[in-house]
Amino acid sequence: MRTLAAELPRHVGSEVELSGWVHRIRDLGKVSFVILRDRSGEAQLILDEKPAFTHESVVAVKGRVAANDKAPNGVEVQVESLTVLAPAEPDLPIPVNQDPAKLSLDAILDNRIVALRIPKIRKVFELQSALVRYFGEHMRSEGFTEIKTSKLIGTGTEGGTGLFQVEYFDTKVYLAQSPQFYKQAMIASGLERVFEIGAAYRAEKHETPRHLNEYVSLDVEMAFIESERDLIELERRILKSIFAQVATHNADLLEAWGASVPTSEEVDRIPVISHDEAKEIVSKRGGHKVFEINPEGERLLCDWAKGEHGIDAIFVNEFPRKKRPFYTYPLDQKTMSFDLLFRGLEITTGGRRINEYRMLLEALPKFGLTPEGLPDYMTIFKYGCPPHGGFAIGLERLTQKILRLANVKEASLFPRDRRRVRP
Amino acid sequence: MRTLAAELPRHVGSEVELSGWVHRIRDLGKVSFVILRDRSGEAQLILDEKPAFTHESVVAVKGRVAANDKAPNGVEVQVESLTVLAPAEPDLPIPVNQDPAKLSLDAILDNRIVALRIPKIRKVFELQSALVRYFGEHMRSEGFTEIKTSKLIGTGTEGGTGLFQVEYFDTKVYLAQSPQFYKQAMIASGLERVFEIGAAYRAEKHETPRHLNEYVSLDVEMAFIESERDLIELERRILKSIFAQVATHNADLLEAWGASVPTSEEVDRIPVISHDEAKEIVSKRGGHKVFEINPEGERLLCDWAKGEHGIDAIFVNEFPRKKRPFYTYPLDQKTMSFDLLFRGLEITTGGRRINEYRMLLEALPKFGLTPEGLPDYMTIFKYGCPPHGGFAIGLERLTQKILRLANVKEASLFPRDRRRVRP
Repeated sequence: MRTLAAELPRHVGSEVELSGWVHRIRDLGKVSFVILRDRSGEAQLILDEKPAFTHESVVAVKGRVAANDKAPNGVEVQVESLTVLAPAEPDLPIPVNQDPAKLSLDAILDNRIVALRIPKIRKVFELQSALVRYFGEHMRSEGFTEIKTSKLIGTGTEGGTGLFQVEYFDTKVYLAQSPQFYKQAMIASGLERVFEIGAAYRAEKHETPRHLNEYVSLDVEMAFIESERDLIELERRILKSIFAQVATHNADLLEAWGASVPTSEEVDRIPVISHDEAKEIVSKRGGHKVFEINPEGERLLCDWAKGEHGIDAIFVNEFPRKKRPFYTYPLDQKTMSFDLLFRGLEITTGGRRINEYRMLLEALPKFGLTPEGLPDYMTIFKYGCPPHGGFAIGLERLTQKILRLANVKEASLFPRDRRRVRP
Repeated sequence: MRTLAAELPRHVGSEVELSGWVHRIRDLGKVSFVILRDRSGEAQLILDEKPAFTHESVVAVKGRVAANDKAPNGVEVQVESLTVLAPAEPDLPIPVNQDPAKLSLDAILDNRIVALRIPKIRKVFELQSALVRYFGEHMRSEGFTEIKTSKLIGTGTEGGTGLFQVEYFDTKVYLAQSPQFYKQAMIASGLERVFEIGAAYRAEKHETPRHLNEYVSLDVEMAFIESERDLIELERRILKSIFAQVATHNADLLEAWGASVPTSEEVDRIPVISHDEAKEIVSKRGGHKVFEINPEGERLLCDWAKGEHGIDAIFVNEFPRKKRPFYTYPLDQKTMSFDLLFRGLEITTGGRRINEYRMLLEALPKFGLTPEGLPDYMTIFKYGCPPHGGFAIGLERLTQKILRLANVKEASLFPRDRRRVRP
């Protein structure tokens, strides 16, 4: 019966069986200290012999637990027998038991399979797993249904640019940039409230610390709203719920990265600023007039919100019509749309969508589109679709900003960029 | 303040506001009865005028709730005002308020956007949402971490056949058939127990009631197992947990389809039969000797289990080595592998994997592979990987078999087959 490292304090004085990875070896001649790593944490082993195994070998040990204030968790295990279950070759390309801050991003990503053994790096993905869980739990608590939609689409709702092409038997299809079309179809079906946790693809050539060509999108769509304000309030509730759970259940993961999440009071204080006002703020703080909000502008806006409202996040709404997709609900020359910037980075884009068939027919030509070009999409609205809207949170960007990682690729298990398609 | 249809019985005698879709209209001249549909169910409305709206129009009404034993939920709403939020064109291609059993599968899938409004069809996906939830909850209860891995792979672990090719900037990549490679990498990383809910792609030309070219795979991988028997027991626990939750919380969805789920006692009774024994049973019941188990054989085996063990499901293990992928852990000429057949259909394939680097090096040439051809994969095992194994449950097949749907495509929101890439 296996005991986990984290359970050892409950077994002082008893015989236990442990299994895990050889994380660290300190050979003092007559005695050696070995740190064993398992999914729960680390345990100190004491061996009365020279260690005959390499770092990262997987071993199973039997031994007796003793209290020791200086050991991890205040306990250590005097080993009575040790079996190597899987030996590791001695030529590790990068060290697993050191702070990854010493490694370059390329060294980490080029050796991804080994880098994921580094406990601090693994914790990024333990946090990500928790984020996915808390997001889903919150959505279900508000009556949302989880959907799984196709990522292979016949044509792009927003035109063919930025799409990856797939050879599909005798035809060609594309990888979906978002489940937008399908979320809206499910709104119209009568489900009213849907969410999806799924992959999204962008064939963009950007090579920046904020872009991935494949990412996980936390997608939300909700019927019977009046404006983007309802969506902003929904996102506040989601974030408060996620952050509160992380603070309660994942403090160890935050601590490993020296990170923290905003409190509920802070999320309530995130200001909502129109796109026009936002441009003015950026112009003033940047020292020159801007006509759109670029990444530097996003950072300036978060700095401003931090100073004025005590939280480095900001909702920007009422984007001009030409800056948003054709399906965005108009409000004169503006739209019922919004972005959420968090710690200097856009992590959400959303808005109310056009739900009226006739309004959509009028909007299409302004964007160079025709109803004949979007037959499936038009069917959603032809037969009665309620007022609705939605948004998407980029999972990797949310993870990145919570842990304050320098590059979003650090928050993707196996990131895909222009040159990286392995491992 | 909107009230949902299902909440009406709590509001008898009060004024309420309802919103939803016009599901059914019965115009009796001086009075008309309208069934309003929302995400929670249906409500009967009484109007003192001719209905000036079409089926599927989205309306908002105000009215007073009165008890009526003959109406849905024992209540009806005397309408005082009605607003059409989104009119529906009158040319619905298929009826939404009739039993879909009258429609062909092609009629349903060709008109998927409208067909998803049919309450009985929508319930398939409400069940599917619940299955995803219960699966995730169970995995987390056993200490599994959820992962999200790339679906764009440089090369196939199992060769290039059956893979869809993607144009990726200046190179070509493939859509992953399974997260096998990545699950194993995460085992070796020290996470030990991982699961993934994600899309999987098979470029197979099959056109059968059991195949999809894109499906959702519920993937599981677990370290420190001894054989496939540990995985079979894990799958029993998962299925018992999912089925018990469905029976408790989703009885209405089962009832709509006249379906039921096995009890925990029945899942415990699912027999484990070796591949050799299974062939004998099929040969005997089919009346002629068989050398492999085809779909007809799978049905015969479930019939046999139903007769012998009172449950139409069977675990088949110890498949011969040449019938399983190169990474399957050998057991003489057999392997530590298994399938689960449920109600006549294979819904799971799994097994223990080779975790020893040297054993893997020996196995590769037998399958025409080289370590040089699988450099990333070999790295997983080169640096210490514990004994492990896993399996995958096809979400659409599980949904199909629970509801006893004739075709797996009915269990996919937007199914992809050889000719279907829309909507």
